[in-house]
Amino acid sequence: MTADVVPLSSVVDAARLLRGAAVRTPVLDAAHWAGGPLGLKLENLQPTGAFKIRGATVALARLSPDARARGVVTHSSGNHAQAVAWAARALGVPATIVIPHGAPSGKVDATAALGAQVVRVDAASRVETADRFVASTGGVLVAPFDHPDVIAGQGTVGLEIVSDVPDVAVVLVPVSGGGLISGIAVALASRGVRVVGVEPELAADAEESLRTGRLVAWPVSSTSRTAADGLRVPSLGELPWEHVRRFVDRIVTVSEAEIADAARLLALRARVVAEPSGAVTTAAWLHHRSSLPPGRTVAVVSGGNADPAWLAGVLSSAGNSI
Amino acid sequence: MTADVVPLSSVVDAARLLRGAAVRTPVLDAAHWAGGPLGLKLENLQPTGAFKIRGATVALARLSPDARARGVVTHSSGNHAQAVAWAARALGVPATIVIPHGAPSGKVDATAALGAQVVRVDAASRVETADRFVASTGGVLVAPFDHPDVIAGQGTVGLEIVSDVPDVAVVLVPVSGGGLISGIAVALASRGVRVVGVEPELAADAEESLRTGRLVAWPVSSTSRTAADGLRVPSLGELPWEHVRRFVDRIVTVSEAEIADAARLLALRARVVAEPSGAVTTAAWLHHRSSLPPGRTVAVVSGGNADPAWLAGVLSSAGNSI
Repeated sequence: MTADVVPLSSVVDAARLLRGAAVRTPVLDAAHWAGGPLGLKLENLQPTGAFKIRGATVALARLSPDARARGVVTHSSGNHAQAVAWAARALGVPATIVIPHGAPSGKVDATAALGAQVVRVDAASRVETADRFVASTGGVLVAPFDHPDVIAGQGTVGLEIVSDVPDVAVVLVPVSGGGLISGIAVALASRGVRVVGVEPELAADAEESLRTGRLVAWPVSSTSRTAADGLRVPSLGELPWEHVRRFVDRIVTVSEAEIADAARLLALRARVVAEPSGAVTTAAWLHHRSSLPPGRTVAVVSGGNADPAWLAGVLSSAGNSI
Repeated sequence: MTADVVPLSSVVDAARLLRGAAVRTPVLDAAHWAGGPLGLKLENLQPTGAFKIRGATVALARLSPDARARGVVTHSSGNHAQAVAWAARALGVPATIVIPHGAPSGKVDATAALGAQVVRVDAASRVETADRFVASTGGVLVAPFDHPDVIAGQGTVGLEIVSDVPDVAVVLVPVSGGGLISGIAVALASRGVRVVGVEPELAADAEESLRTGRLVAWPVSSTSRTAADGLRVPSLGELPWEHVRRFVDRIVTVSEAEIADAARLLALRARVVAEPSGAVTTAAWLHHRSSLPPGRTVAVVSGGNADPAWLAGVLSSAGNSI
């Protein structure tokens, strides 16, 4: 199948919808410690700690009044759950979030604290449970990445980057289901900026897909081993895949040790907390620079909801790059 | 003696000098987790990890070409050393920094890496050594806080706060030698904003000075016990003292446990790294709100150069406020 890519006009409209609803995050200069022209787009400073608030807010804001009254449903073990709960509260929309057992308790508690109805199920039945709520309530399912309005919302990250760093040449973006990189690619397609994806070596399905030209999935037995819990989705979504193969320059992979090293330096030199998924782009810059296109680069630090014990461990390690 | 306070015009001119030389740091909304209208002025995002870069840059920029050629000298075990080294490199001024033995090795290395000449001495002879370099080189001593140009530079923090948060009612500022709170107080004096200082209980000399109306010093045997190494100066400077007694509403003190708790929440909820000195203002909001004036409040997170082991310990503790 061939899906249409999201138009730039939808991303521009999303930026209007997000004014005052999401933080217009800064790009922090890292050149003085990163050994070259690197900026950090600090999406970890969003109120829920991740960029996901953008796509969720746009998806909900574009619902009809009738659909809003019926409410929204989603399933997620991570940052999308909090983002939908946050946007639902802001817009006065009832929200039901299906969260599998085993999800980090901090993220579950944060979602419930935002006023969403949280339903806990076994991981295997999360989709079925969400579908059942959709059927019984008439609510709208808000997919985490395979959704044009979500992609448009995430694309506003790209608009802000070119506005703040007009001479940017390369943007590094974490890749999981592909919503973020798809939106950013749309925002930058006409600007001559090269968009490079970054994945953990243990969850490099998109790298394989782009390299081989066909959409592949990786087994959970591999992807579950990366500390980057936000990047464990086994495959790009179908709509993101259309964007990635048309717009994305290349995808670089990083090791678990490189992710930890990058998170340590983000804490000690940039003084920000990144979760492992948010540190992969800085890891690519620090450890795989010869694989990246040249020029002024912005790394998207996509989220900061790090497990405290993981972060404490990272800080206690000696590190190797600086 | 009575010294003249720094005029607002000098702070406004400092803002012009700092354009492009210091980060115009954001105020991050913390209302969703802090239980009320709190914003965080993130001075930990400055390239050297602390606000000190502002005052040092302004002091050096205002030197005559002749004085710049002779170079600058300072003594510091902390963030002022890095700030002077940073500003000296940016402006092409030779810098000699006297650092006492026992200073954190990370801060010593960072200062040397910026190209400054670092001289290590016993703590007792730091002032004498700096004076000797001034005498032998004809260089200019850049005092860390008892200096009108340094105060003017730090005051730009206040100008940015009222620009970004026009309805701010209260600004919380860490107090050590008093340069930062003096500058901010000048910037806000005509705006009806109440400026409140915050000190560790173990280094509450300014609180005692303001309460008793006379400038007192606390013994190093007490101040050296706080984790907030940036706030161990035994006394306000004479020029800051003139500002504090004229402009500062009150000074609140916080315990060591409250400082650690605030740093933990800044990492986990605001996703930023604060050093203990930078966390005291958030600690005052979280644990002493009944002692603060009402209304929209901005806490200055003054620095982020946390010792990695200290931060790891803070993250591993259970915490008590959220």
